[in-house]
Amino acid sequence: MKGPTLRILVLGAGGMIGRKLCARLAADGAIAGGRIDEARLVDLDAPVPPVDSPFATICAAVDLAAEPAAGELIDARPDVVFHLAAVVSGEAESDFDKGYAVNLDATRRLFEAIRRERDRSGGDYRPRLIYASSIAVFGAPCPATIDDDFLAAPLTSYGAQKAIVELLIADYSRRGIFDGVALRLPTVVVRPGPPNRAASGFFSSIIREPLAGREAILPAPEETRLWCASPRAAAGFFVHAAAVDFDRLGPRRSLTMPGVSVTVAEEIEALRRVGGEAAVRLIRRQADESIANIVAGWPGRFDARRACAFGFVAESSFDEIVRVHLEDDHVAAVA
Amino acid sequence: MKGPTLRILVLGAGGMIGRKLCARLAADGAIAGGRIDEARLVDLDAPVPPVDSPFATICAAVDLAAEPAAGELIDARPDVVFHLAAVVSGEAESDFDKGYAVNLDATRRLFEAIRRERDRSGGDYRPRLIYASSIAVFGAPCPATIDDDFLAAPLTSYGAQKAIVELLIADYSRRGIFDGVALRLPTVVVRPGPPNRAASGFFSSIIREPLAGREAILPAPEETRLWCASPRAAAGFFVHAAAVDFDRLGPRRSLTMPGVSVTVAEEIEALRRVGGEAAVRLIRRQADESIANIVAGWPGRFDARRACAFGFVAESSFDEIVRVHLEDDHVAAVA
Repeated sequence: MKGPTLRILVLGAGGMIGRKLCARLAADGAIAGGRIDEARLVDLDAPVPPVDSPFATICAAVDLAAEPAAGELIDARPDVVFHLAAVVSGEAESDFDKGYAVNLDATRRLFEAIRRERDRSGGDYRPRLIYASSIAVFGAPCPATIDDDFLAAPLTSYGAQKAIVELLIADYSRRGIFDGVALRLPTVVVRPGPPNRAASGFFSSIIREPLAGREAILPAPEETRLWCASPRAAAGFFVHAAAVDFDRLGPRRSLTMPGVSVTVAEEIEALRRVGGEAAVRLIRRQADESIANIVAGWPGRFDARRACAFGFVAESSFDEIVRVHLEDDHVAAVA
Repeated sequence: MKGPTLRILVLGAGGMIGRKLCARLAADGAIAGGRIDEARLVDLDAPVPPVDSPFATICAAVDLAAEPAAGELIDARPDVVFHLAAVVSGEAESDFDKGYAVNLDATRRLFEAIRRERDRSGGDYRPRLIYASSIAVFGAPCPATIDDDFLAAPLTSYGAQKAIVELLIADYSRRGIFDGVALRLPTVVVRPGPPNRAASGFFSSIIREPLAGREAILPAPEETRLWCASPRAAAGFFVHAAAVDFDRLGPRRSLTMPGVSVTVAEEIEALRRVGGEAAVRLIRRQADESIANIVAGWPGRFDARRACAFGFVAESSFDEIVRVHLEDDHVAAVA
């Protein structure tokens, strides 16, 4: 492969999307037209390195909220920084301080570390920075379909923190400190593994758990509509983002990612097509007002025109999302 | 007058709008249905107290960027906080660190001081907070008329800082920490006194200086369109905001203020009607690319429907704005 060799930094590499992204990087061996030379993968616990990686992998336990952490990571001058580390929505709502400390302050320290390294290098250092934002930057009242010009008016602290970092990314990019883009991720469904503390977890568990023969709890009404994409598509967004023409992006650095608009009822129908009535019977309705309130404020349909014009792609149906789950992550029920 | 007695805190009380606001508070003696008992007026230099104030006035020099400043101000438990203190657009653009330190970090420390006081009081303390935001939160490309649902996509660090604080105000208000509203001020024209470092200063000086018999520099093209209101109207926005029904505001706490949409050419025509050809001849065209670039990204027309529904009012023509200047601030030329 021609082109430059690249050093990669992945923050939040141990999270679900982070692991998918690292596996994809290891499989590709290259990104944005360059061969990957070295990947530094960090999370609160040291991530497990991806198998069969063709490049050097350094896995480290790093608490970004600790003061010198960001500076030390940037000392290695990564060419591409993937920033997926975050306190998730439910926890950022229940722990105000922790949410702002990690999702805003630690992120800003990372940006400042890049600025310092850029100043130190006389302007020579200017990495690409791909940030995991979220459609949680939007909040009701919203139009039935949200376009790329609609205001960010979050109804959670998590959404506020994501929207603030989006503004920082636009400003730091405009200033030439780094070349950043914020990917507003749809709800990622079907999440593998055990539930995390995100309020959106049930959208996945009502598919994953019944398909594995286990009961799942549905805390919100069946009319709840969501905008979703698979973990495979989400990892693909990050890989694709590293290669977009950043000059063409201009000053607006937030892109709403494509996805599938589906209601919980339609999810259940898709489950029925794959797992039959037996699977559907494993969904237990147990209303949770706090979760229902959070997700009710999330928008369910987007016109992600700008991202599509830049070549980002997701699944085209919820059936396809279930198929991706079965191919990538399904763990069969123990008979 | 019936109703409660209120303690007021004005940050940035020595600035142009701050002084207008304090004079108005002194003239009214009351706000939001309550008699003003005490007003604490602070700025980098101790503000001059308004004349004939019917309430106790404490004027103090406070650097909000200094660590304990915000906490000490909130110790007095003001019922209404007017926050107009800021590093202006031109300076926030030329001094990245200072802009973020004052416009973002110091403001957030103020919000955190309110949170601490609220926690200390067992939830009893919850002031109203009226924040001076700006239409600089918007940036090109914009539609010809911007409505209340259009995204904040600033093209200056100043605008980014304002937009970030707007998000914090919405989140802190949603959390019940304070009851906040961000007023997106139009360009305030005609500013009295000597020019400040705001990029928008020339919009005022091309009226003020010629009417006082002095030359003024026009650094941007005559087609430049701006959204403006008088200093009197701007002070009125703050007074009015303190009395709006905050429950009716809901979670969206940023309001684009009403104004007049006018081009520099139309400003000059208004000047001609008042000051004649002699005044117009005092405008000297001297292009400044940096200023022209900043203001070119600012939007010139809004549909400020939400603010109007909440009863905010501005002038209805640029001639009226000039008349307000002549009534309130005009200093006649020395013959």
